[in-house]
Amino acid sequence: MSQLHFLSPSGFRAGGVYAGIKQKKTNDVGVLVCDAPGGASAAAVFTSNKVFAAPVAVGREHVADGSLRAIVINSGNANACTGRQGHRDALSMCTLAAQLLDCDRDDVLPGSTGIIGHLLPMEKVHAGIRAAAADLGSDESHALAFNDAILTTDTKRKFAAARFKLGRQVVTLTGICKGAGMIGPRLAGRDGRTLSIGRAPAKRGAQGTMLAYLLTDADVPARTLQGLLEAATALSFNSVTIDNHTSTNDTAVLLASGQSGARVKDRASVLTFAAALEEICTDLARQIAADGEGATKLVTVRVRHASSDNEAGVIARTIADSPLVKCALHGNDPNWGRIVSAAGYAGVAFDPDRATLKLQGTTVFRGGKPVPFDAAKVSAAMAAAELLIDLDCRLGDADAIVWTCDFSKDYVTINADYHT
Amino acid sequence: MSQLHFLSPSGFRAGGVYAGIKQKKTNDVGVLVCDAPGGASAAAVFTSNKVFAAPVAVGREHVADGSLRAIVINSGNANACTGRQGHRDALSMCTLAAQLLDCDRDDVLPGSTGIIGHLLPMEKVHAGIRAAAADLGSDESHALAFNDAILTTDTKRKFAAARFKLGRQVVTLTGICKGAGMIGPRLAGRDGRTLSIGRAPAKRGAQGTMLAYLLTDADVPARTLQGLLEAATALSFNSVTIDNHTSTNDTAVLLASGQSGARVKDRASVLTFAAALEEICTDLARQIAADGEGATKLVTVRVRHASSDNEAGVIARTIADSPLVKCALHGNDPNWGRIVSAAGYAGVAFDPDRATLKLQGTTVFRGGKPVPFDAAKVSAAMAAAELLIDLDCRLGDADAIVWTCDFSKDYVTINADYHT
Repeated sequence: MSQLHFLSPSGFRAGGVYAGIKQKKTNDVGVLVCDAPGGASAAAVFTSNKVFAAPVAVGREHVADGSLRAIVINSGNANACTGRQGHRDALSMCTLAAQLLDCDRDDVLPGSTGIIGHLLPMEKVHAGIRAAAADLGSDESHALAFNDAILTTDTKRKFAAARFKLGRQVVTLTGICKGAGMIGPRLAGRDGRTLSIGRAPAKRGAQGTMLAYLLTDADVPARTLQGLLEAATALSFNSVTIDNHTSTNDTAVLLASGQSGARVKDRASVLTFAAALEEICTDLARQIAADGEGATKLVTVRVRHASSDNEAGVIARTIADSPLVKCALHGNDPNWGRIVSAAGYAGVAFDPDRATLKLQGTTVFRGGKPVPFDAAKVSAAMAAAELLIDLDCRLGDADAIVWTCDFSKDYVTINADYHT
Repeated sequence: MSQLHFLSPSGFRAGGVYAGIKQKKTNDVGVLVCDAPGGASAAAVFTSNKVFAAPVAVGREHVADGSLRAIVINSGNANACTGRQGHRDALSMCTLAAQLLDCDRDDVLPGSTGIIGHLLPMEKVHAGIRAAAADLGSDESHALAFNDAILTTDTKRKFAAARFKLGRQVVTLTGICKGAGMIGPRLAGRDGRTLSIGRAPAKRGAQGTMLAYLLTDADVPARTLQGLLEAATALSFNSVTIDNHTSTNDTAVLLASGQSGARVKDRASVLTFAAALEEICTDLARQIAADGEGATKLVTVRVRHASSDNEAGVIARTIADSPLVKCALHGNDPNWGRIVSAAGYAGVAFDPDRATLKLQGTTVFRGGKPVPFDAAKVSAAMAAAELLIDLDCRLGDADAIVWTCDFSKDYVTINADYHT
């Protein structure tokens, strides 16, 4: 599947340009269009932050009918906390894209990421949209041009794809995302419903922002598409945390062009598509954690046998969000006391006398007591690019996984002086 | 009052020695005794972490009758996650102190702070207790010897004192505390009741641990004393966060010798004593925040006009716990978008269109929009040793204050390799 790229699903074209919004001279405006007659079936989830950006407010409205024709995005400026002018600017992005692509303004979903509290430089944005729309394509170079336009402090592009059969038809599903800081997504449904199945409630939770764009050429009714995206989000994007700071702009959008001819309608096809979607979203979520600002390793916190799905998620999230735990992981320090104590203050059922903690497969704590282990060996194992914290609570039958990263001096460097 | 020290209240003696528990050659075992006939009237609050250390379990039992004769403490080892042997060791510390001081084991409250998951080196601990008990005094040098024995990564001693009149009697109230990392106390009453009046619920929350010891020569009935300590704790120790990691060992103890002859009994004397106690505890809490690991400044987050005391506390706490906010504060970066967005994901009522945010007295955000300000001037003002974030929610009439510190590379250095 190495030949797949973001625009591999039939029916989409995109482009991206540098419009001068970001200081760093990398693309910062992108346009994507679905060429299927009538546009794409569309689903989206948005930040649950009460302080949400103008493009989120506009996006919720424009996706409400389950149909979209285009996406227009910029990086370098979040268009958040920008009042009425910000809202007008987000709409203006849609209006211009709609004119250029010959569709309705309501069929364009805007997206922005970058600094909060500054009005968009609309001349640059408009020029960027015109330039991007003038050079749309469906090949890999256009896919990358669009992809680059959503990046901010990311050090890597994040891409995942799957190609699978539904009946006799071959379906392609792809996704790209961005996010390295201000990552603690708590995405909610279009209508604001919490997606907390098995995950931390929306109590804690990015300027970095998470943006994810998913494309498929399957034919999926909008209502089904929304349900599938929400289910996948709870288990993926809402289970990643870098700094537990829920952004004003977090957005994930899924467009289905229907151009493959494969219909996702009966139970079997829904299950197949759902599994692929969850896999893609999980893959992207893991890539976000791995590319966390200053991160040197991807950390999986697995909590097993908790009292409920939600409590398993809360324990995993509390461990993943402890700066003390994250610093120890950075230093390859098997300081398991910090992990067990984090579980203890998660505020949900936890009994250290029943629990077993493994670090990189080595049991370090069981039944309220330390288990003797070779600290040098475990520390060496912790130097890997991927780290597994496995906490068995032995209280119930609920499990959860949260992905995070270690906490380094570079995180401080990156974030102590974002403005300059 | 510069002449006051921890042992200024009549009726107490203490001592401290280096027993070889800590690698750093500073005192690590301390003993304190109340010489009043029958001992001291005693109150205590303990961590609400479900993973609590052996000395916390023993301490809860020993203070339950509202009376204590002595305190025995060590640093360098938390005696947490140490199973039954840990519990026996905590009791053994009390037993030896009781023998040496000629009281009951149940009248001794133990305290420990340091690394989690290692059994106490009991030979050293016993030798330390003998040495400390053999040299007890009530002068300043003994006060400092005891004080030093509770410190770990603290760079400064933390002390506060007040002398005031109750009727014709002069009462002295003093306190010392320790804590620089693993600081997110969520102290609960002896019986485990949450003390969340106006503060964040016990959802998040220290290896560093917060230990506070308060002494007075007022005569206060135990039940009154406990109520006063709990009320003061909610507004002080439970309102400080360095890394939001609630320790397994957090403990605050208040002993009243009654030796001044001043009785805290009628409403007027209770109010006077309560005000002094809250002032001392608040002063100590601020000293903890100011001495946070790697911290360069004390940050006060004041949230005003929130919907309820609890919601005001949750918003303040969410801002204070955001790594993104703390890094910006470290860099003197007036990145107010991070502060407003943190309020937005606190999970309680907040409306950016009503809110006003001031940084060091300068309004930077009001009514959903940025307020133009001189960034260089505000940044220069943020370089001060004390920083005030003032968020007016304009939703209700509830206020809260949380103290924290900035987040620097030194925090990572200190915590990435604690073991070595």
